[in-house]
Amino acid sequence: MKAVVIGSGSWGSGLAQVLADNHVDVTIWGKDEHEIADIRDHHRNEKYFPEVELNHDIKATNDIAVVKDADIIILSVPTIAIEDVCRLITPQLTKKTIIVNTSKGFHPETNERMSCVIRENIPAQYLSSVVSLIGPSHAEEVVLRMLTTICAVSLNEADAKTVQHLFSNQYLRVYRGNDEVGSEIGVAIKNAIAVASGILSGIGYGDNTKAALITRGLAEMIRYGTAMGGRLETFMGLTGMGDLIVTCTSVHSRNFQAGYQIGKENSAKDFWEHNTKTVEGVRTAKVIHDIAKEKQIDMPIVDEVYKVLYENKEPLESARDLMSRELKPEIN
Amino acid sequence: MKAVVIGSGSWGSGLAQVLADNHVDVTIWGKDEHEIADIRDHHRNEKYFPEVELNHDIKATNDIAVVKDADIIILSVPTIAIEDVCRLITPQLTKKTIIVNTSKGFHPETNERMSCVIRENIPAQYLSSVVSLIGPSHAEEVVLRMLTTICAVSLNEADAKTVQHLFSNQYLRVYRGNDEVGSEIGVAIKNAIAVASGILSGIGYGDNTKAALITRGLAEMIRYGTAMGGRLETFMGLTGMGDLIVTCTSVHSRNFQAGYQIGKENSAKDFWEHNTKTVEGVRTAKVIHDIAKEKQIDMPIVDEVYKVLYENKEPLESARDLMSRELKPEIN
Repeated sequence: MKAVVIGSGSWGSGLAQVLADNHVDVTIWGKDEHEIADIRDHHRNEKYFPEVELNHDIKATNDIAVVKDADIIILSVPTIAIEDVCRLITPQLTKKTIIVNTSKGFHPETNERMSCVIRENIPAQYLSSVVSLIGPSHAEEVVLRMLTTICAVSLNEADAKTVQHLFSNQYLRVYRGNDEVGSEIGVAIKNAIAVASGILSGIGYGDNTKAALITRGLAEMIRYGTAMGGRLETFMGLTGMGDLIVTCTSVHSRNFQAGYQIGKENSAKDFWEHNTKTVEGVRTAKVIHDIAKEKQIDMPIVDEVYKVLYENKEPLESARDLMSRELKPEIN
Repeated sequence: MKAVVIGSGSWGSGLAQVLADNHVDVTIWGKDEHEIADIRDHHRNEKYFPEVELNHDIKATNDIAVVKDADIIILSVPTIAIEDVCRLITPQLTKKTIIVNTSKGFHPETNERMSCVIRENIPAQYLSSVVSLIGPSHAEEVVLRMLTTICAVSLNEADAKTVQHLFSNQYLRVYRGNDEVGSEIGVAIKNAIAVASGILSGIGYGDNTKAALITRGLAEMIRYGTAMGGRLETFMGLTGMGDLIVTCTSVHSRNFQAGYQIGKENSAKDFWEHNTKTVEGVRTAKVIHDIAKEKQIDMPIVDEVYKVLYENKEPLESARDLMSRELKPEIN
């Protein structure tokens, strides 16, 4: 098997190292010449893991022709770049390829899920299937070979099995799933909830509050996700609560960090003025808020995140409003 | 309404303060004269919250006759003491009372759930019903009035509503539930999983590993709990995943702390030699292991915790064994 990872960011490097550790022929493709040279010549990704020496078998290149004879291509770029990347690789493809999606969010204009975007942009004669490789997995820990579990989700079971076996090893345990809708919605919504988690921590609340947020956030995820066709049990798994937990409780998460700053300042103003990083949850909160409103799905937490981000509501007021809703049974 | 809290520990003090904040007439009963005098005279619980000044309206006494005209009695003692406490208060009772259970675990000999133990030990003419007030709530944070959510679970809906309204306020949001079996099994099993979480942290694993443990731990909780008659949706709520998350991720948890020490030393030997605190998860792991074995319920994580605690297995070997199980779909 020959694998190519598109994207020289943290997760691309992490997954490339997993494959190299598993003795798979793997090359990282990236635009940035300096980053690629860093990986190729010094076995380092200085920008993300200055302390880590990567597996020496990882190859790296700026030449997109590398995908020509790949059996599997792993897309590791932000959601806003997925469409462009598909267009970039398509002219190079010569045979049916498994495309692995690792992005968590929606298309910037159509609000479509990532697997749909990929299927629309890679011609069928070059696409075996899309497999989403997603779950609770900070790259910072995977490169250190810490025990991690993720899910290979695909409508094509054979391809999901291939990906499962290709990536599994002593520190990475890959499960299989086929609920593409549920899994991709779960990992997207969790970013919006993680912004809320950061906000609450920034205000100064503790572990009880966080547990409440995650639990009620999961209830919202299930309400929304099942209304969109996802299966209930998916949201209890790695791409639902698993990813929700890791993103809401870990300082590694950009979504959490963005929320933390907003909570600390009790305003999103500074965030909008100064943020330059991709924070998927910020846009996801808008997508979910808009669709939920249209479809009349009750999403109190996402709605408050939306109000804080887009309507200048004070986080403290949002937290108070959530706590003073009518007392009711936990499960309707 | 007149309320009495049995037990002057951290959670008893925390709940008494919630009631006092809500202008309910509340008295803490405790055995320890020094602790009771500390609360009564100095509005402090030096042992647990040396920095906190408690609400001055909390009364405290060593005289068990205080329960005589109580409308509601909150039992806040370890599971091993519940039966004795029921026997202690019964001779004093003069009317039907709501008994609130806050303990998480099983009877030390019969392995029965707490609500059952209370119903067997308080004569029906004095018992309105048992309400379990449980969920993700470290006393250390409730006493600081941090946003917290819990559940009032009872077979008697009117009593659950009474408890819900009595305890709810700006910082404590109480939901209602009626799945006594599911809720009480959830909060008990989570202590055993929290020992595993501590062990993994003690070994040195990070957030990805913890998310994996919590997610797969929930899967075990659901398998076991539904087999015992609990309802699936209960395990996705505050008494299921909510309490699981807070116990597995918070340093406040004694179960986590015990596991952490065991993981750090890669052995449970020292724990058995020196531990003096009540660590509910240690006994719960044995109860669940034994019953699951008899009923043939697959519980890989609880089984490994059992082996580490009772069969001297090395934690590192347990973690490796969990990771090298056969690769499979996430959901059967």
